[in-house]
Amino acid sequence: MKTLPSLSLAGIIAASLLGCQSSSLQHQASIQLQQTAVNSSLGYDIVESLTVEVGPRLAGSKNDLVAVKWAEDKFKQLGFDKVYKEPVQVPVWNRGEAKASIISPFPQPLVITALGGSVATPDNGLQAQIIRFDNLTALKEASSESVKGKIVFIDQKTERHITGKGYGKSVGGRSRGAISAAEKGAVGIVIRSIGTDHDRMAHTGMMRYKDGVQKIPAAALSAPDADQLNAMLKRDSNIVLSLDMSPQHLGSTTSYTVIGEITGKSKPEEIVLIGAHLDSWDEGTGALDDGAGVGIVMAAGKHILDLNERPARTVRVVLYAAEEIGLVGGKQYAKVHAGELDNLYIAAESDFGAGYIYRIDVNVAPQKFEQVKTELSSMTINGVKLGNNEAGGGPDVSMMPSLGVPVASLRQDGRDYFDYHHTPNDTIDKIDPKALAQNVAAYAQFAYLMAESTVDLRPLKQ
Amino acid sequence: MKTLPSLSLAGIIAASLLGCQSSSLQHQASIQLQQTAVNSSLGYDIVESLTVEVGPRLAGSKNDLVAVKWAEDKFKQLGFDKVYKEPVQVPVWNRGEAKASIISPFPQPLVITALGGSVATPDNGLQAQIIRFDNLTALKEASSESVKGKIVFIDQKTERHITGKGYGKSVGGRSRGAISAAEKGAVGIVIRSIGTDHDRMAHTGMMRYKDGVQKIPAAALSAPDADQLNAMLKRDSNIVLSLDMSPQHLGSTTSYTVIGEITGKSKPEEIVLIGAHLDSWDEGTGALDDGAGVGIVMAAGKHILDLNERPARTVRVVLYAAEEIGLVGGKQYAKVHAGELDNLYIAAESDFGAGYIYRIDVNVAPQKFEQVKTELSSMTINGVKLGNNEAGGGPDVSMMPSLGVPVASLRQDGRDYFDYHHTPNDTIDKIDPKALAQNVAAYAQFAYLMAESTVDLRPLKQ
Repeated sequence: MKTLPSLSLAGIIAASLLGCQSSSLQHQASIQLQQTAVNSSLGYDIVESLTVEVGPRLAGSKNDLVAVKWAEDKFKQLGFDKVYKEPVQVPVWNRGEAKASIISPFPQPLVITALGGSVATPDNGLQAQIIRFDNLTALKEASSESVKGKIVFIDQKTERHITGKGYGKSVGGRSRGAISAAEKGAVGIVIRSIGTDHDRMAHTGMMRYKDGVQKIPAAALSAPDADQLNAMLKRDSNIVLSLDMSPQHLGSTTSYTVIGEITGKSKPEEIVLIGAHLDSWDEGTGALDDGAGVGIVMAAGKHILDLNERPARTVRVVLYAAEEIGLVGGKQYAKVHAGELDNLYIAAESDFGAGYIYRIDVNVAPQKFEQVKTELSSMTINGVKLGNNEAGGGPDVSMMPSLGVPVASLRQDGRDYFDYHHTPNDTIDKIDPKALAQNVAAYAQFAYLMAESTVDLRPLKQ
Repeated sequence: MKTLPSLSLAGIIAASLLGCQSSSLQHQASIQLQQTAVNSSLGYDIVESLTVEVGPRLAGSKNDLVAVKWAEDKFKQLGFDKVYKEPVQVPVWNRGEAKASIISPFPQPLVITALGGSVATPDNGLQAQIIRFDNLTALKEASSESVKGKIVFIDQKTERHITGKGYGKSVGGRSRGAISAAEKGAVGIVIRSIGTDHDRMAHTGMMRYKDGVQKIPAAALSAPDADQLNAMLKRDSNIVLSLDMSPQHLGSTTSYTVIGEITGKSKPEEIVLIGAHLDSWDEGTGALDDGAGVGIVMAAGKHILDLNERPARTVRVVLYAAEEIGLVGGKQYAKVHAGELDNLYIAAESDFGAGYIYRIDVNVAPQKFEQVKTELSSMTINGVKLGNNEAGGGPDVSMMPSLGVPVASLRQDGRDYFDYHHTPNDTIDKIDPKALAQNVAAYAQFAYLMAESTVDLRPLKQ
């Protein structure tokens, strides 16, 4: 980690240029944090340590507990004031194998992956005709007669967008497609991967079943394989697919949300929470999802620890368990900490890869919005614009606004995020170290400034 | 397929602008071919037909014979004057499964693929310490003591270059690494994929054994997995890898080289050969390697068929069997046709994907080189420069110059070829239809002009 010799002067000048309302001391420290962070490889080093020494860490797997131990050790090694973990019960699901092939009229294998939580096919596999739909809505509108006994193919493309909004538009087919398909008598479902790439890799991700509705096997096809099915369907409407999948549900086990704290100097009971999730899917090494987030918030905390003195409020770095399989750790955290949510000053989670942060949005009392923007104004030296009051906060803190807790969303450039998301390709070479360091700087500034803030952020608008 | 109304006029003008020596009739026809081809989707349609309706077609597999039937049917459907096939005995190798994982100190799975021709691991797999080498030369220089009982890891990166020359520099580790490793007592070998991408896909490709040297299992790691091994080795020199591979050698079978001819009008016994290989590796659909070549030479032939009259010489479109597994079809062709090689006027193979052709090189009698360039001069309207007299001709015709047969190399932009080569990612979405059409145009012009050429191209320099 390098430090710049002319730091204080630069800080003072920048702070005066910004014409901030809050004390120039806070802004000096914020600017110092930014400069330290962008010149440090700490965030990247943490991601590398996690992805190399632990690698894939599916919630409930053996490696998940290796990751928990890694996180405790790393927090301690970085010198956090308090390090502890909180148990979370998680279901255990093992991917097993997933194979698919066209039986007729053009026999050949296809690349698929099981969706998270899918049941297995029968022992001898499953062979049935494909029926294609543009999207989940089209499936819902189809007659049971047309779907019965077939394998549903939902073929919705995911739009590339800086905000990642294409994901929200297409992910319904993944999460709820098996229910709709089974309600109409389908024997299985395959979807075009929820992804923006054109690699021969399928994107996994969580899917759901519904009590009282048959559980059918569910898989994703890579984009080229979905294209291939379409090219076949143009030639022949009777395409027979074979599916052979062996995932297993193996009860439940205990995982942990791991927490490191920087104890506040004057208001230690008030908490600024910056989080990420520790678990990952099992096919990549979880570098972008969410090793990056882990590196960002741990490194941000470390840079705050390295300041001359602790900020007023406690900064709590939370590495949630089991996000991928249904925000299990996030929901558990909200439940266990229900009694102290009044003391949760503001929360934000980093869980969208490692692209540059271009804007910070918040969700605070509307009449305090301008004041908060002023308090955060030194974040602009890091290329972060001050945005709107419509933040969601991130997956594991997404329930916080409804519980009255302010949140922030540090918006990352997510244009390539869904090229790699939930695939074997989610590895550290996809991370730009400079962009990651800019993220660390933004989280360090945000957490520090909020830990020093003098504004009462509540009540949120309802 | 579209034709341009102002074709003859454009042809005449272009031919005069070129100031060619050969008759303006040939140049008019050449220019007409170029314009027809670049405005046609025929080449792309052929690749799509092959990759969708046949898909992967490993020599000796069931689908290989589906491809042979497809090729015969397609030649006939396109109206070639003569369609026939020539038997080729090919070994049968089945990939089976290939799994690898780090056992200690950082347990996690790695992405590998078996190299073509590899033997299986023992039934319970193979576990041994990794020993890393920069390249094959470094392995050769190592002591047997240091290698014995270990799994060799050859970690050479492949340089990206328009000519693909990086491949030649690194491929020795793939083809001959298992021999050198086994000679020093290694129990297995894994190599960094011979590829220029950073996708989590391993590149297969042929490897060899040597009589009298132990046959050890050989696999390729994807680039991110090779990086991962390096990151582990920086932390701990004792990395234990588990390999579990089940490829099978299943004797041999008959495949076929499939040939379509356009019978020459005045010198039908003289042959201009344009070729590609029909087989592919088994993990992709063989779109770039070598579906593109198949589409290019078949479509080029069709455009020549559509001219008002047949060119003087016969244009023979040869779709070689079993190139990937060791130029089996190409070698067989040279053997079977040994008696008629005097009549083989010139030969060229398209087997480097679908990137734009930027130059044509030839290998002809040195004193005829300038004349040949003049004969080919109308190829420049297609963006193809006239190059040197150092052509190799392509894999399946690579033995031709040593047999006295002139060849040409139509040089393609291969900058992204080794991103996809020999991986599951070799699918049709990686082909730019416009670039493919430009290739078709170049082969059509080349084959036509050579079939009409008045130059005696021999003897080659020795």
